[in-house]
Amino acid sequence: MLRYLTSGESHGRCMLAILDGMPAGLQIDKSDIDRELSRRMQGYGRGKRMSIESDKVKILSGVRKSVTIGSPIAMMIENVDQSIERLGVVLHPRPGHADLAGVLKYGLKDVRSVLERASARETVARVSVGAVCKALLAGFGIKVTSHVVIIGGVEAETESLPFNRIVKICEKSPVRCADIKASGAMCAEIDRARKNGDTIGGVFEIVIKGVPPGLGSYTQWDRRMDGVLAKAVMSIQAVKGVSFGIGFEAANRMGSAVHDEILHDRRRGFSRKTNKAGGIEGGVTNGEDIRIRAVMKPIATLKRPLASINIRSKKGVYATVERSDVCAVPAAGVVGEAVSAVEIANALIEKFGGDSIGEMKRNFEGYLEQVRRF
Amino acid sequence: MLRYLTSGESHGRCMLAILDGMPAGLQIDKSDIDRELSRRMQGYGRGKRMSIESDKVKILSGVRKSVTIGSPIAMMIENVDQSIERLGVVLHPRPGHADLAGVLKYGLKDVRSVLERASARETVARVSVGAVCKALLAGFGIKVTSHVVIIGGVEAETESLPFNRIVKICEKSPVRCADIKASGAMCAEIDRARKNGDTIGGVFEIVIKGVPPGLGSYTQWDRRMDGVLAKAVMSIQAVKGVSFGIGFEAANRMGSAVHDEILHDRRRGFSRKTNKAGGIEGGVTNGEDIRIRAVMKPIATLKRPLASINIRSKKGVYATVERSDVCAVPAAGVVGEAVSAVEIANALIEKFGGDSIGEMKRNFEGYLEQVRRF
Amino acid sequence: MLRYLTSGESHGRCMLAILDGMPAGLQIDKSDIDRELSRRMQGYGRGKRMSIESDKVKILSGVRKSVTIGSPIAMMIENVDQSIERLGVVLHPRPGHADLAGVLKYGLKDVRSVLERASARETVARVSVGAVCKALLAGFGIKVTSHVVIIGGVEAETESLPFNRIVKICEKSPVRCADIKASGAMCAEIDRARKNGDTIGGVFEIVIKGVPPGLGSYTQWDRRMDGVLAKAVMSIQAVKGVSFGIGFEAANRMGSAVHDEILHDRRRGFSRKTNKAGGIEGGVTNGEDIRIRAVMKPIATLKRPLASINIRSKKGVYATVERSDVCAVPAAGVVGEAVSAVEIANALIEKFGGDSIGEMKRNFEGYLEQVRRF
Amino acid sequence: MLRYLTSGESHGRCMLAILDGMPAGLQIDKSDIDRELSRRMQGYGRGKRMSIESDKVKILSGVRKSVTIGSPIAMMIENVDQSIERLGVVLHPRPGHADLAGVLKYGLKDVRSVLERASARETVARVSVGAVCKALLAGFGIKVTSHVVIIGGVEAETESLPFNRIVKICEKSPVRCADIKASGAMCAEIDRARKNGDTIGGVFEIVIKGVPPGLGSYTQWDRRMDGVLAKAVMSIQAVKGVSFGIGFEAANRMGSAVHDEILHDRRRGFSRKTNKAGGIEGGVTNGEDIRIRAVMKPIATLKRPLASINIRSKKGVYATVERSDVCAVPAAGVVGEAVSAVEIANALIEKFGGDSIGEMKRNFEGYLEQVRRF
Repeated sequence: MLRYLTSGESHGRCMLAILDGMPAGLQIDKSDIDRELSRRMQGYGRGKRMSIESDKVKILSGVRKSVTIGSPIAMMIENVDQSIERLGVVLHPRPGHADLAGVLKYGLKDVRSVLERASARETVARVSVGAVCKALLAGFGIKVTSHVVIIGGVEAETESLPFNRIVKICEKSPVRCADIKASGAMCAEIDRARKNGDTIGGVFEIVIKGVPPGLGSYTQWDRRMDGVLAKAVMSIQAVKGVSFGIGFEAANRMGSAVHDEILHDRRRGFSRKTNKAGGIEGGVTNGEDIRIRAVMKPIATLKRPLASINIRSKKGVYATVERSDVCAVPAAGVVGEAVSAVEIANALIEKFGGDSIGEMKRNFEGYLEQVRRF
Repeated sequence: MLRYLTSGESHGRCMLAILDGMPAGLQIDKSDIDRELSRRMQGYGRGKRMSIESDKVKILSGVRKSVTIGSPIAMMIENVDQSIERLGVVLHPRPGHADLAGVLKYGLKDVRSVLERASARETVARVSVGAVCKALLAGFGIKVTSHVVIIGGVEAETESLPFNRIVKICEKSPVRCADIKASGAMCAEIDRARKNGDTIGGVFEIVIKGVPPGLGSYTQWDRRMDGVLAKAVMSIQAVKGVSFGIGFEAANRMGSAVHDEILHDRRRGFSRKTNKAGGIEGGVTNGEDIRIRAVMKPIATLKRPLASINIRSKKGVYATVERSDVCAVPAAGVVGEAVSAVEIANALIEKFGGDSIGEMKRNFEGYLEQVRRF
Repeated sequence: MLRYLTSGESHGRCMLAILDGMPAGLQIDKSDIDRELSRRMQGYGRGKRMSIESDKVKILSGVRKSVTIGSPIAMMIENVDQSIERLGVVLHPRPGHADLAGVLKYGLKDVRSVLERASARETVARVSVGAVCKALLAGFGIKVTSHVVIIGGVEAETESLPFNRIVKICEKSPVRCADIKASGAMCAEIDRARKNGDTIGGVFEIVIKGVPPGLGSYTQWDRRMDGVLAKAVMSIQAVKGVSFGIGFEAANRMGSAVHDEILHDRRRGFSRKTNKAGGIEGGVTNGEDIRIRAVMKPIATLKRPLASINIRSKKGVYATVERSDVCAVPAAGVVGEAVSAVEIANALIEKFGGDSIGEMKRNFEGYLEQVRRF
Repeated sequence: MLRYLTSGESHGRCMLAILDGMPAGLQIDKSDIDRELSRRMQGYGRGKRMSIESDKVKILSGVRKSVTIGSPIAMMIENVDQSIERLGVVLHPRPGHADLAGVLKYGLKDVRSVLERASARETVARVSVGAVCKALLAGFGIKVTSHVVIIGGVEAETESLPFNRIVKICEKSPVRCADIKASGAMCAEIDRARKNGDTIGGVFEIVIKGVPPGLGSYTQWDRRMDGVLAKAVMSIQAVKGVSFGIGFEAANRMGSAVHDEILHDRRRGFSRKTNKAGGIEGGVTNGEDIRIRAVMKPIATLKRPLASINIRSKKGVYATVERSDVCAVPAAGVVGEAVSAVEIANALIEKFGGDSIGEMKRNFEGYLEQVRRF
């Protein structure tokens, strides 16, 4: 079983994660994690803070001579701005954030004690954990990427694009969009929002290639792979919806146009004509690419702030302005990759044991052979 | 902590659930559970099987003289058709089901051993569990309903409808739709699909009224209420997407048009001008109605079956036809109510203790007072 | 992951268990479970109730044509006496039971609502679950037994006895004791206690043979195999202490006389000169027999009842007398086998995957080979 | 729900813990944690390493202006010796440690990769977590201590001693023994062992005062408070047995001499004449002091090393000598306090909610009143 906890406040000393349950024998390079942290900071539409930030991980435990030893892996990302003890009291909760619900729940008299932890800064810890899991997956031929499909109403045309093309085109897009034309329009939309002191959201898609059939289970409700992934992705700050394959479009189609017919071939075994299911049927991976879409609402901290209430005086005020990204959808996609990688890694470890990479690979190969010979 | 396991196969002896962690002192009437089971069977578009089914629960433990005693509650729904040991081997996996992934995963040579458990018949157990949780919630003034917002591309106009209106209008709609005009068009769409031997899906919305602010938490990724609810709803058979509030529409709007401004009033305390967030901000309930939408794909068992492969001979065939609902979106909504009720009940128990109803209510009242006086 | 919930009250309709996570492809014979249920009822010192009880299991789900299919396994044992709704109110809590703490915790006004669930009758469900797990373990050459080492102060001499001898001798002992001489003295002790209207307890030992090295882990506190087993065994009604290997005797010995020196042999691989650790070092199984001892206190329901308080009037009274076993240590040992079998099965599934028996065996063999070639 | 993960290797950068689920509003002083870390290092019989160690905690998150804010609390204890990357390969596994089972399980070729994590150094993280939990408990009038009852066969006479006397006398004993005479004999025993290059173990008792009745539950096997505590204490390095109250002595007594008769008094409510059960009946706390005994085996690293096998050459060798405590029973008791405090704190949070200290206290008081008026 793979599990992790994160901790840390936005302006505290650091963000931390302890990842428990990684098999021994996995090569971990600090640079692999730093690269993911760097991917998380990019994207047209980020504020000034991102340009000065340069997150680097410190691996504090669990790795010896660049190889995991089965122990829990602790990772720390120090904050540049560690002013939490000096920063002033915040009394104006921002609509769209945990601010108000947080102070009510925890009986706090300062919104700062909520927003410091509720901040999306926390995702640096999740991205670090995801980076380790991606390294694990890579050894089994499983790759994870993400791309932006809508920003501010501008929709990309990417339905027929294979994994590798997505990866390649996204590199050149400032918004991680695999449709270069749409990419430009998205940037224009971001500029327009910035000019208006407004923000915009969008939809990103996570694509996972090389997943074997048989992860997750239909036998008990909480073991369904789609439920597990939905929880992980929905738990990303500002995500308001998650779907698989054609998602909500399924409400408009006939059954005969929704399911993926089954093929078989001596060499490749079973496959599908299409992948409208997004790689999961009945809660179980079917061997096709997993495709998850998630919608991120526009960032809730606007330059033109929204109406709020002073929690002390109870008078009408405008919400506190904390930072200034206009659009963070590309970054959210990178976080989406991370949290999905964790769940796939966990499912892999559950199915193939996982005390050591050698053992896991032996079990994995045995299963692939079993599937081929089925 | 509330938790439950279900068991049972579609043509086995019975469907079962054990629900662990319900407080003592809750009045449970068998008829409350039977009513939910009955609601689950209804809806224009169900097949003949539904009309002969008449699920009734047997409470096997945990309730004494119609009141819970703190012990686990076991509930059994016997199957009318218990022919599992006599039914023949199924060799043609159906696209859109767990069939193929299931036999590969579990090394089974008969698709029946998969479809018997993967069947949506399992939801009778979840609906029973949900009915008990609804009874708990009712004692705290929390009500749960659902309504259909899209079927086969026909969309209802319900955005401004309050909870009670939804409940009332749905009673009169054969598809549990709160827009009577759309309701008729939906039925026509179902008829059309039936005539073509096809199936259709749709979108339902779960609405939960009376939830206090402060359930769930932003402090750790897996405690976010939206993530928890998304997992529960996504784990319903055939659901392919889940969203909160305006959901995927957030990708098309400006930030200034997405968030819910904060109001305050001596008598009512904090409230919101709008509820675009669907009652959850930063992973925490904010006191507004929780609104969850989920898309259900068209049922994967068509009268005009899809291309498949005989798992023994590996030859191309047509998928096995098992049953014949044309549309089950209204029923899926009822299941959605159940699984959401469980998670809200669990969050309530986590926040307010929960060994006995008396204790829980005292703690609940104390918190409401704390929020009012905040 | 293997997990289970039980439900049921002592005089309710039935005792139930749902066991989730058993691999597909395991042959399960109802008679295997019934045999364990029968073993649980035996033992010199049981009351009249035992002689009329004859528990038989009904497998309600998860097994098709006597083979598991990966679905949850539900097992029901009906109660002969189902009078719970008619039985009178109990106002005199018995010292040594959950009675008083139970009514306070759950706010109940009738001790019966506590004792019905707190009763050791619940262990029929656990024994059923354990029987299925034993069947799993048997396929991997892992055997579980138990024997009584102390009853009422009479201690058996069994330290050097190998597993098979224990099994064989116990068959002939009315108290499941592997020292025939002590066995007689124990029975005499039981007779003496019965004559005095008193009860006696004792110590049983669970022995598990054939466990591979490497189950459990030292890497996180809650993954230690000894901790996990201790929880399972301590959770048996009336157990007040659990130890491994030489247990509390370790407090009296020098370090040089406590640890098990390591040997190696081309053919057998690593082994130990002794097994004072009871098969677990650093929270991990080391390949030697697991040996767990547990002390069961004398049954708390005496014919000569203890001083108590009427929970309504608060007046001094004598505790209610419910049933009349004099000594149930041999039965507790059988329950100890069951709960230990579950934990070993779970650890096995965690390490070797576990969707199907075939897959699990392939992975198991691969690991044994890895250990041999280490 | 309270949960925590620890990480860190003995000669790595640091030991870490993330504690998730502490209520907001708890005053946490770094010095409270450091005091517990200091208590953990003391005790006659510790080696030179202890005298140079001086563990101090750094609180990295979750606490703002010395008060918890509901966020996860991260604590780091830096290691003085951080030589893990430079230290040489260890090929001789030590009997009594995880060494051999560890390399087999994880497929490691260097015992150091096991012993670095399996080391009892990890308990600094658990003691830190326990210190925070003790601070929580103190606010509810719950106190936790431990004392040594046996070392090397020398047994203390402490059965009738109340909590406060134990605390007071232990302060003056170099082995945390509440029987001054036995304390001296224990030290002499330690000296004798040291002279012989040997080690000795012993038994410690954890005493928890002020626990309300009703924590834990008999309703499901894994919710029993004794099982939960047994797991926590058994998971301490070198602990081989755990018992409650009179523990294994119950095997030698009559039922009439084992149970704690119930008294009642208008002012104090229910109480007991004796406390042979150690504060838990039927898996539920009964309001009396919780008394847990645990046996710690003699430290497995001897100056006169034990026979082992070189894992590379497979030749007979002597086990590697790593460090030199002669007896660490008093320290183990301090760790026992910590892990028990966590479980009691968790049970308290489960029963009384726990988002904020204010809310938790209100709920706690309400329950105490309910119990008083029962």
